[in-house]
Amino acid sequence: MKLAILFGGQSYEHEISIVSATTLKEKLCDFELTFIFCDQDHTLYLIDPTQMKAQTFSSGNYAKAPVLTLQQGGFVRKKRFGSETLTMPVLNVIHGGDGEDGTIAGLLDFYKIPYIGPRREASVFSFDKRYTKYLAEALGVKVLNYEILHKEGSREVTMSYPFIVKPSRLGSSIGVSVVKNAEALDYALDVAFEFDESVIVEPFIEGVKEYNLAGFSAKGVMHYSIVEEPQKSDFLDFDKKYLDFSRSATVHEADLDERSVTALRHNFKTLYDGLFKGALIRCDFFIIEGEVYLNEINPIPGSMANYLFKDFVSAITMLLEDLPSFNRIHVNYQYIHTISAAKGK
Amino acid sequence: MKLAILFGGQSYEHEISIVSATTLKEKLCDFELTFIFCDQDHTLYLIDPTQMKAQTFSSGNYAKAPVLTLQQGGFVRKKRFGSETLTMPVLNVIHGGDGEDGTIAGLLDFYKIPYIGPRREASVFSFDKRYTKYLAEALGVKVLNYEILHKEGSREVTMSYPFIVKPSRLGSSIGVSVVKNAEALDYALDVAFEFDESVIVEPFIEGVKEYNLAGFSAKGVMHYSIVEEPQKSDFLDFDKKYLDFSRSATVHEADLDERSVTALRHNFKTLYDGLFKGALIRCDFFIIEGEVYLNEINPIPGSMANYLFKDFVSAITMLLEDLPSFNRIHVNYQYIHTISAAKGK
Repeated sequence: MKLAILFGGQSYEHEISIVSATTLKEKLCDFELTFIFCDQDHTLYLIDPTQMKAQTFSSGNYAKAPVLTLQQGGFVRKKRFGSETLTMPVLNVIHGGDGEDGTIAGLLDFYKIPYIGPRREASVFSFDKRYTKYLAEALGVKVLNYEILHKEGSREVTMSYPFIVKPSRLGSSIGVSVVKNAEALDYALDVAFEFDESVIVEPFIEGVKEYNLAGFSAKGVMHYSIVEEPQKSDFLDFDKKYLDFSRSATVHEADLDERSVTALRHNFKTLYDGLFKGALIRCDFFIIEGEVYLNEINPIPGSMANYLFKDFVSAITMLLEDLPSFNRIHVNYQYIHTISAAKGK
Repeated sequence: MKLAILFGGQSYEHEISIVSATTLKEKLCDFELTFIFCDQDHTLYLIDPTQMKAQTFSSGNYAKAPVLTLQQGGFVRKKRFGSETLTMPVLNVIHGGDGEDGTIAGLLDFYKIPYIGPRREASVFSFDKRYTKYLAEALGVKVLNYEILHKEGSREVTMSYPFIVKPSRLGSSIGVSVVKNAEALDYALDVAFEFDESVIVEPFIEGVKEYNLAGFSAKGVMHYSIVEEPQKSDFLDFDKKYLDFSRSATVHEADLDERSVTALRHNFKTLYDGLFKGALIRCDFFIIEGEVYLNEINPIPGSMANYLFKDFVSAITMLLEDLPSFNRIHVNYQYIHTISAAKGK
């Protein structure tokens, strides 16, 4: 089965996307894989599988690879005489900007290239943490209280310490701080505003239980991963998360009663239905006094959360066999005809 | 000043986009205009200005025009020897699908082509009427109560008659019905589900006052159009709306007290700020018992709502002079270097 892995991108998580793609090379070796690298300027390169290692990118050697352009239905590689069109579904593993903000979704939708990954609406609701709150609240999924600060606005936070300060639109803990007192606030905000115009502030709950659940829908059936209780210090900082992206060994299942697992799955399904079709996502939840709260939605989790699935190859195969189709609206120019006739021209 | 008008698209409103573009040819004759037609299969054509008339499209003659492809920063026209790159900002007037759903936004963002039009987030929140409700509710802007029905789900509506049934994701009144009794409900739902998987149901308020306000932000200042009270029968059906898209004469201002105008503008700004930068949008409001309610957001109004602006050319000029820039994130491969070093490869 053919599959192109699209990675890189104009994103603060460009490098962890390379790590994800390299990890998936091994996990998905059952597929006939093609590697397409999007550099930070949006040039697309066809990377030979033997070159799928860190050095190819850190050395700049990727720039010697063949360039790909896009046309309806596929990628085009120019050859000395003529050109070759690569047609296969794409697995979008561009984390953060581009891949998760709807840019790649819009691009692939325009060129009608089928893909595993969040669609435009799904991207918008998961990429910006404010919009994730809007979505969850509208669907009746609990979230922590929050306040929004703007770069040019007031820096006053009304909730009590300690709290977490996060850029609205970044993943992988970039720019995130736990703020324990007023002295630390300004610096934490300076850091967060380096990365985004708006910042979200949430209560920091010492020792809160966090649970990650991944899943996807195919042919009308939801498929869930095991539930993981991630290892934590205060929270995962970028370096730790970075290593996290190269994980490939299956993790141990969290020690949770059946009622809690059912509640996590119920919340996952509520968020997923009608919005995330075609994507394998990971939802990170808290359980506080027996109640499930959504922390965030990862629409392209690190290395596709392969380590949470007992049979990751089957998961990707099931997704590929039921990707959303492209609606074709037939335009018949009926109204234009009417107008032309009425105007006599 | 150079400006490309992008129109057509894979959309139920393909034809009204052609009407908008033709109308704008006259309204924006002060600009050096280029016309780019996106056909229903996403092939882009460079249309000669003299061919900007209904017949070019209804006859299929557009297909004889030069084809354009995309590259970073512009559109490419192949010539017998070599090629020509067209670089200019784009005015996106693809109504409905493609133009308003984030596809065109993602495409132009990827190729770093500056444009007037809704960005990806703005598209998602205005294209789907459910998500407009989420946004308004989160921002404290009042909306009418609503219920959502799904194509495969129950057809039970709990609110009392009469109510309006609308496909979640279409504009221009396509598939919309006023339902006055139980007998009419099934047919109205059949019609609406022809166009979308989900349908929104809202109370129909006889004789409700509707007010349209357009505007945009440039260099930190909001600019508002006059307020119009649109002519109404029960509601504008597609044929009436269609003619509406070719309007070019400035309309009469609604007879409203200053307090109401201020309230409309306040709600407009609340919705626009931080989300719609780069776009000229029209918000359609109700005023009920002195309170403002959002009906819907048109992120690419028919013929750009030129008829609501006293100086439409200045409006477009101001927008062009302050389009959102493309952030460039510099990737330095620091983490990849660290990992390569640690692994000794």
